[in-house]
Amino acid sequence: MIPGPFLLYLGHSDDEIGIKTSRGLAAFRPDDCVGEWRHDDCPLTLGLDRIDAAEARRRGARTLVLGIANAGGRLGADLIDDALLAIEAGMNVASGLHQRLHDEPRLVAAAQAAGVQLFDVREPPRDLPVGNGLARAGNRLLTVGTDCSVGKMYTTLALAGTLNARGIRADFRATGQTGILIAGSGVPLDAVVADFIAGAIEQLSPARDDDGWDMIEGQGSLFHPSFAGVSTGLLHGAQPRALVMCHDPSRAHMRGLPHYRLPDLRECVEANLSVARLTAPAVRMAGVSLNTARLDTDAARRLCAETADALGLPCTDPYRFGADPIIDELLQWSATPRSATSTPIMTASA
Amino acid sequence: MIPGPFLLYLGHSDDEIGIKTSRGLAAFRPDDCVGEWRHDDCPLTLGLDRIDAAEARRRGARTLVLGIANAGGRLGADLIDDALLAIEAGMNVASGLHQRLHDEPRLVAAAQAAGVQLFDVREPPRDLPVGNGLARAGNRLLTVGTDCSVGKMYTTLALAGTLNARGIRADFRATGQTGILIAGSGVPLDAVVADFIAGAIEQLSPARDDDGWDMIEGQGSLFHPSFAGVSTGLLHGAQPRALVMCHDPSRAHMRGLPHYRLPDLRECVEANLSVARLTAPAVRMAGVSLNTARLDTDAARRLCAETADALGLPCTDPYRFGADPIIDELLQWSATPRSATSTPIMTASA
Repeated sequence: MIPGPFLLYLGHSDDEIGIKTSRGLAAFRPDDCVGEWRHDDCPLTLGLDRIDAAEARRRGARTLVLGIANAGGRLGADLIDDALLAIEAGMNVASGLHQRLHDEPRLVAAAQAAGVQLFDVREPPRDLPVGNGLARAGNRLLTVGTDCSVGKMYTTLALAGTLNARGIRADFRATGQTGILIAGSGVPLDAVVADFIAGAIEQLSPARDDDGWDMIEGQGSLFHPSFAGVSTGLLHGAQPRALVMCHDPSRAHMRGLPHYRLPDLRECVEANLSVARLTAPAVRMAGVSLNTARLDTDAARRLCAETADALGLPCTDPYRFGADPIIDELLQWSATPRSATSTPIMTASA
Repeated sequence: MIPGPFLLYLGHSDDEIGIKTSRGLAAFRPDDCVGEWRHDDCPLTLGLDRIDAAEARRRGARTLVLGIANAGGRLGADLIDDALLAIEAGMNVASGLHQRLHDEPRLVAAAQAAGVQLFDVREPPRDLPVGNGLARAGNRLLTVGTDCSVGKMYTTLALAGTLNARGIRADFRATGQTGILIAGSGVPLDAVVADFIAGAIEQLSPARDDDGWDMIEGQGSLFHPSFAGVSTGLLHGAQPRALVMCHDPSRAHMRGLPHYRLPDLRECVEANLSVARLTAPAVRMAGVSLNTARLDTDAARRLCAETADALGLPCTDPYRFGADPIIDELLQWSATPRSATSTPIMTASA
């Protein structure tokens, strides 16, 4: 486990989506965050005190979280220099980037000298199994999306929170660096070797014989040409009873790819159900989660209602308006006979 | 490059598909193979002289190829002991297993002491890019399949050979350990970290402005619940102008998964075209390649004819009957206007 409290790094970032790990920690573990560290050219803020490493240490921070992302996930010279300052101030450093802190000799040497630790959250577990597709018992929900970074983790956490509030056990299963930092465990799916994607998810969400739910954080999109392989393996490994489609209506094109438009919502729903049916023939779409952060309240509510009508599915912004419409749908299914038994909900005969 | 000639390892294998790397080298680089090394409990043969490491060394072999595969790709104690014998005899050792020779201290120490090398063919290249999906020029063909191990590599090599025989440049792009050993280069796709699958293929088959073809070896199957993520990323990264569907009509169920039946051929053709269209909107299916090794000649020819009729596509067993029907179809398309230009054949507007 990574020791808190945390100092959240924004650095020189000027891309709201690029700071999603720092923002996720600020949103879901606010009591563990003492401040944000950003340079003068960073126009973004998490609403925390702007402090540097030395001040954070004085306020009790034990770990600098390099909660920023860039394509390819490399450690730049800026990041290394700032991480060195934090180490000199006596803090651990945690990173979710692909390029590992442990592969940078200056950081390893400095951490050793200062007696602090380096945490590479994206280091996948060893000895992952190959997926076997065997039908397994239990309720599992997986979030999917029209694109990367549209709110799959927020949606999963909100849905899990609503189930818990109703007295139903729901366990968040993290598959990305932010989720892992929030949950304290999980598997960094995009860092897993390709042959083991489905197997990693089978291991992360094993059979369960209670009436609770595994709430699995989705990754990427079947319609993102860079990452659809990850999304495919995740759908197959999850063997989901339910999917929830996540969408950001303000997105002009696929994340990072101006030459790719977003898929039609209905087309995306059908494609995800079709891929999921290979291992979960009875899978259903439980609803649509819209990220309405850029719309005013009236417009956001109107869009949710229109989307629900158009697709014939519950639709909400769970972070803004609550997850009840989707949870109501989910529990209606669970009220059907099988929920009282421990037999698998689907037979993998496909 | 891995020095030949080779001694091909069968060990204790009793599964024909498990020895496919050794068999592939025997089939496509016969002049570089001095013999096969198998134990008394191994009922299989490549038709080469049965010799051990010491005898192979006397016959000039420079490298033992551990050309066997098992689920998960682990190095067992048997394999390590036999590799040590080869090293003591003065040979290099090459392996395509997931678990690396370099991670086994006894092998590293023995190789160092003997002055020979260890080759881990499944070690992926460093600094792979994330896929960008940008439309790129050139003719690319990708083999896809109803299952794993149905003949995608053989088909790709046979198609490339037929194009070359007609005076058309065709470059085999290897994506698996056997193909890489045959070609001398390539990318071990199933060992690539999941976020970089599509990017690895974009790098392996860059834009080309001649009328030649990149012939890309496929992996896995969209219908294999363990490996469909790899197949998805490969389809997106390849941006193929043409697909060829590979199928083994004798297969009773999905490889390694008795609880999964094979997909219907037509369903599999449609699913692959649908996924490929995300980055290659103009992609077409050029034909079906049947692995008819278990049928007599008449039955094999009849099945090819029936399949061609049923799907409205050329169908052959390229290794047995030649690849001409599929190549004829391919060159008919190439005769259309674009082949004389270097502009992209598709616009990635999806």
